[in-house]
Amino acid sequence: MRKKIVSPRKFVKPSYSALIEKKRDGSEFSEEEIRYIVDSVLDKEIPDSQLAALLMAVYFQGMSALETATFAEEMMLSGEMIDLTKLSRPKIDKFSTGGVGDKTSIVLAPLAAACGVVMPTINGVDEELEISTLQKLSSIKGFKKSMDLETFVEQLNKVGCAIIEQDKEIAPTDSTLYSLRQKCGSIPSLPLITASVLSRKLAAGAESLVVDVKWGNGSFIQDLEQAKQLARSITRVGRSMKRRCVALVTDMNQPLGDSVGTALEIKEAIELLKGEGPEDLKEMVLKLGMEVVRLSGVAGSTLSAKQTVQRHLKDGSALEKFKEMVGAQGGDVSMIDDPEKLPKAKHCKKLPSPKRGYVHTINAGMIARGVRMLAQRKNGTLDPAVGISEIKKVGTQMKQGEPLMMIHYNDEGNSEAALEFLKGAYRLAPKRPNTPDLVVERVA
Amino acid sequence: MRKKIVSPRKFVKPSYSALIEKKRDGSEFSEEEIRYIVDSVLDKEIPDSQLAALLMAVYFQGMSALETATFAEEMMLSGEMIDLTKLSRPKIDKFSTGGVGDKTSIVLAPLAAACGVVMPTINGVDEELEISTLQKLSSIKGFKKSMDLETFVEQLNKVGCAIIEQDKEIAPTDSTLYSLRQKCGSIPSLPLITASVLSRKLAAGAESLVVDVKWGNGSFIQDLEQAKQLARSITRVGRSMKRRCVALVTDMNQPLGDSVGTALEIKEAIELLKGEGPEDLKEMVLKLGMEVVRLSGVAGSTLSAKQTVQRHLKDGSALEKFKEMVGAQGGDVSMIDDPEKLPKAKHCKKLPSPKRGYVHTINAGMIARGVRMLAQRKNGTLDPAVGISEIKKVGTQMKQGEPLMMIHYNDEGNSEAALEFLKGAYRLAPKRPNTPDLVVERVA
Repeated sequence: MRKKIVSPRKFVKPSYSALIEKKRDGSEFSEEEIRYIVDSVLDKEIPDSQLAALLMAVYFQGMSALETATFAEEMMLSGEMIDLTKLSRPKIDKFSTGGVGDKTSIVLAPLAAACGVVMPTINGVDEELEISTLQKLSSIKGFKKSMDLETFVEQLNKVGCAIIEQDKEIAPTDSTLYSLRQKCGSIPSLPLITASVLSRKLAAGAESLVVDVKWGNGSFIQDLEQAKQLARSITRVGRSMKRRCVALVTDMNQPLGDSVGTALEIKEAIELLKGEGPEDLKEMVLKLGMEVVRLSGVAGSTLSAKQTVQRHLKDGSALEKFKEMVGAQGGDVSMIDDPEKLPKAKHCKKLPSPKRGYVHTINAGMIARGVRMLAQRKNGTLDPAVGISEIKKVGTQMKQGEPLMMIHYNDEGNSEAALEFLKGAYRLAPKRPNTPDLVVERVA
Repeated sequence: MRKKIVSPRKFVKPSYSALIEKKRDGSEFSEEEIRYIVDSVLDKEIPDSQLAALLMAVYFQGMSALETATFAEEMMLSGEMIDLTKLSRPKIDKFSTGGVGDKTSIVLAPLAAACGVVMPTINGVDEELEISTLQKLSSIKGFKKSMDLETFVEQLNKVGCAIIEQDKEIAPTDSTLYSLRQKCGSIPSLPLITASVLSRKLAAGAESLVVDVKWGNGSFIQDLEQAKQLARSITRVGRSMKRRCVALVTDMNQPLGDSVGTALEIKEAIELLKGEGPEDLKEMVLKLGMEVVRLSGVAGSTLSAKQTVQRHLKDGSALEKFKEMVGAQGGDVSMIDDPEKLPKAKHCKKLPSPKRGYVHTINAGMIARGVRMLAQRKNGTLDPAVGISEIKKVGTQMKQGEPLMMIHYNDEGNSEAALEFLKGAYRLAPKRPNTPDLVVERVA
């Protein structure tokens, strides 16, 4: 499995504490040192305590583009590498840092497939607050989140897309590091995020990568400058690894689209696949889709990329691909034909605006927390039927009592608890605010 | 054992990862948070990985004097507190950051006792390169490094001094932290060093503390400014803990005294206890001794402190106390009366100066490494008989071939290996260098 790279020079293994001190004091690791660290993680030789200290030192001292590329490469090589070379079509994947109400992955995979691109999506560990893409897809009856990698490749060959959960054979050292980083405070390190994303995505067979780096109150990156840095880091390191990456820095200072939930988001995704749905999401799908088709070489110019994407949304071929994918993964396709069949909450009520004015800001993080509360069952699972819809976005003019959103719920207690967050997320002001740019920067 | 301090407010335990992130982002811990961390270490609740990450975050972000004092206090209270209140005499201890050829602890404890001060010395973990005070004392036949704490207090009452090794009942959380810090690259953190020293020394019963912070190529602190900072940190935090501390910042850019080894250093210590021995050591013992008697209140003025120390060296009472202490700890006192009875190496050779000139610099770290090599037996123990003596110090004028030092050895192979380091430690130059100040700064 693991390709050991034989070095002509003899490498004397340093002690782990010497490596920690080296990074702590701001030095750069050599290729051999990074290879040794990743090998030690794979072989479970390095104690968690020393690994955690090393990661914290990296958090403070950073890594160069070369170090990060070597690190990503070694983590990528630490497990199974999916071989998609038999598939003649271009293989492009999308990665998003995650946001509230973001259902673009669900739309983009079949859209790419419809455009003649293979999109091999293996999703990472669930974040604390977001409802993951796979949780959303699981609201479709029968949908299977996992399959063996052989079947995955078969489906990619047949359908052109597949969305499955993190496989333990793919970049296993990244999984080890990631769970340690979650416990040990080293998640928000740009080089560690960069290496994690690239190792997983490239091991899953992607030739090129479109990255959506979200910034704002609904993202784990609250600072625009940091988001730009991450976008630059991923594209630069990707280039060092001889892969083409394009990153968009996008706004996550309010939920994306008009609904947040599980089945409710699938419903919205289906609308998008028909070329309909809320404007912000339509723009996002178009922008990301254009990057995918341009990276793939399917379309040469911006205009032709736009036309390609729009055509496949309009002519129903993207929706058809979605049905193919869901069907291949065991899901009940009739739910896509008739979204009313999707899980539906028993109750629905409006959240009235407390006063007149313009929606000035929405704290997307609080929205996510509220929806999570709506959905949390006593047994720890999430209720796929509940959520919020018809969300009034930043800039909307409100009368007092007009609904800021509709709340779909099954449990009265949950809905009461959620209300505090959903209400608290809104700020109204007498003057119309500037509407934020959805795509702030493009880094290629 | 552990005194739990009951807080009137309710403290909601944060997650360990939240604490790591708090320190990582530069915030200050509350008293309750520090108490909770130390409790979690004592109860082995916090995983090593999270503790290591937390310590690395402290390394980068530091701790305030208040945080450090709380941390020291809590670690001190985490184990047995030796109660010396029955002893009417003042209780003062000395702490040194450690240096090459430093035998002042061996001299200072009986000297203090002779002056009417109780010095309860419990020594920390051995450092990598130095030969520890207790290893040196163990070259006296029969000398016991450990005793139960009751016997320790009895000996302090009877003799006035005792030097024993780290007891697992004393500040046990500091021991846990220290060994983790060694593995995980967080040893050189000023607040962590400060809290470690104060927790151990104060738990051992010291009312006040004299600190010797060494800087230079033979210390783990290579930078003078950092040494000054540590001196200030210990005295300031000690003050917050209502203890008086005086720190001297001293030179460790060459070995202290004329010999480095085990029995050879005991021999030199005996000379010092007779008011003889090399000038630099005599000065060091005098300066540290004066601080001890002034802190104790035994002497009021600088002049009277100096006279008190000199009198007890001259009249043989310090030497007598040393014999009492060694005798109480089971050691063969006749070896002190006749140091020729101490372990002696079979061979002795000179290290000739390669050229004429002045001794310009001596790398004390390399000297320590060389002596360690001389002493290292195949079974891992140290040969107490070997070492170096008659060391020519910085500023000495040399003719070619004149001995830079005498090498005492038992094993030819060891001596060959050591020679590289001992030779390499010396730099000669045609011009007389400035002789360094032994005591650079006094911080009270």
